[in-house]
Amino acid sequence: MRNLKMVIEYDGTNFFGWQYQSDRRTVQGEIECALKKITGEEIRLIGAGRTDHGVHAIGQVANFKTNTSFPIENLKKALNSLINEDIYIKEITEVPPEFHARFSARSKIYQYKITTRYSPLKRNYYWFVDYVLNLKQMQMAGQYLIGEHDFKNLSVADGDNYIEKNGKNTVCTVCNLSLTESNIDIIISIEADRFLRKMVRGIVGFLIDVGRGRFQPDAVKKIFAEGLNGLYFAPAHGLYLVEVKY
Amino acid sequence: MRNLKMVIEYDGTNFFGWQYQSDRRTVQGEIECALKKITGEEIRLIGAGRTDHGVHAIGQVANFKTNTSFPIENLKKALNSLINEDIYIKEITEVPPEFHARFSARSKIYQYKITTRYSPLKRNYYWFVDYVLNLKQMQMAGQYLIGEHDFKNLSVADGDNYIEKNGKNTVCTVCNLSLTESNIDIIISIEADRFLRKMVRGIVGFLIDVGRGRFQPDAVKKIFAEGLNGLYFAPAHGLYLVEVKY
Repeated sequence: MRNLKMVIEYDGTNFFGWQYQSDRRTVQGEIECALKKITGEEIRLIGAGRTDHGVHAIGQVANFKTNTSFPIENLKKALNSLINEDIYIKEITEVPPEFHARFSARSKIYQYKITTRYSPLKRNYYWFVDYVLNLKQMQMAGQYLIGEHDFKNLSVADGDNYIEKNGKNTVCTVCNLSLTESNIDIIISIEADRFLRKMVRGIVGFLIDVGRGRFQPDAVKKIFAEGLNGLYFAPAHGLYLVEVKY
Repeated sequence: MRNLKMVIEYDGTNFFGWQYQSDRRTVQGEIECALKKITGEEIRLIGAGRTDHGVHAIGQVANFKTNTSFPIENLKKALNSLINEDIYIKEITEVPPEFHARFSARSKIYQYKITTRYSPLKRNYYWFVDYVLNLKQMQMAGQYLIGEHDFKNLSVADGDNYIEKNGKNTVCTVCNLSLTESNIDIIISIEADRFLRKMVRGIVGFLIDVGRGRFQPDAVKKIFAEGLNGLYFAPAHGLYLVEVKY
């Protein structure tokens, strides 16, 4: 059996997220359906990250086991011609049998895009924030977030076995967090060994509140220690899974 | 009666173009409908340029006469709250009675966006061209297009009284034409005193064929003189009406 790794880009606007759901359009469901048509096999993809409804990906990674002997380039072409144009398989490579898209990942990079001027052309791709933002303050808060911390108060619990809020491990290591401004837009990039559910959106929601003066940058300490009232999650449509590193 | 000028941005993806059609969703139709709800008047907008189905605008301009005494800022807010989020009225200003969005225009700027790597996130906003393109050759052809020329062979005839292919004036003055490359994308900007129907898309289709070696840059001369077989129009979704100058 071959183990194949795919790098996938998608526009999340018209998907109910990555993960398969029997009655809704999802990225995983759409690719699995195309794989079945091509190989005849019931294939279950293992995705590196579960993106929510509306979240985009530039470099989502998934792997799957298959008996098909199709040359990889043909498989890629066949898949891309079967799936809709809001998904694109950028790359397929054969990997060792033990490769697992989620468990083998060393880190992931997410980006979050914000615009401070409303634009119809950006409405599904940037979060429009109608405040004057102090980037310096946001960058200072970002510095506090870097390192090994318990991010449970900036995320939501979910039933998944690798993200448990009560009891197990909610400690993540953020190795990079940068905020860059270009004209009216702000791009936030975050790299961490792993991410809890809605963690990037929790971080971004907090950073925006720092930028508009609702919280001081060092409120991060209080969040980690005991939580903070009034936190919220930035909307899904500004978020991109950019890269998974192995 | 007041004469009001609007600057409008829209994502053309889900519109059948700018111009009002009784049975289809158009930008003009949607704004006129909102204006009627606000003012009670049957208002007909005069648009600076008629964008086709799928064409976007960052700076479309329109004007209209009205008896309403609404303060301009309130009118802008009311309009933006009534129209769908794929249109945004960026600015409303009061202008002299003789101002006419189309006839008063001195020049217009269009941009056309091309990408050489397929991306689901760009599918409605860039033309994906699957060829290696020689930018230098394209820039050389662009130089031949600048100036006062008869562009009828790079456009289509239409029934409109200001664009007549048989007989009247199809001479336009292109004052700027630039091609800039950034990574895998090419942006073509064209400024002219006026544009014939599908003229930008005709120019872009030709420039791409120069870039891939199908035509030489100086084929422009033949196009102007007698036309050229094998020309086609670039698709609508890469095109943006960027600015109208008065």
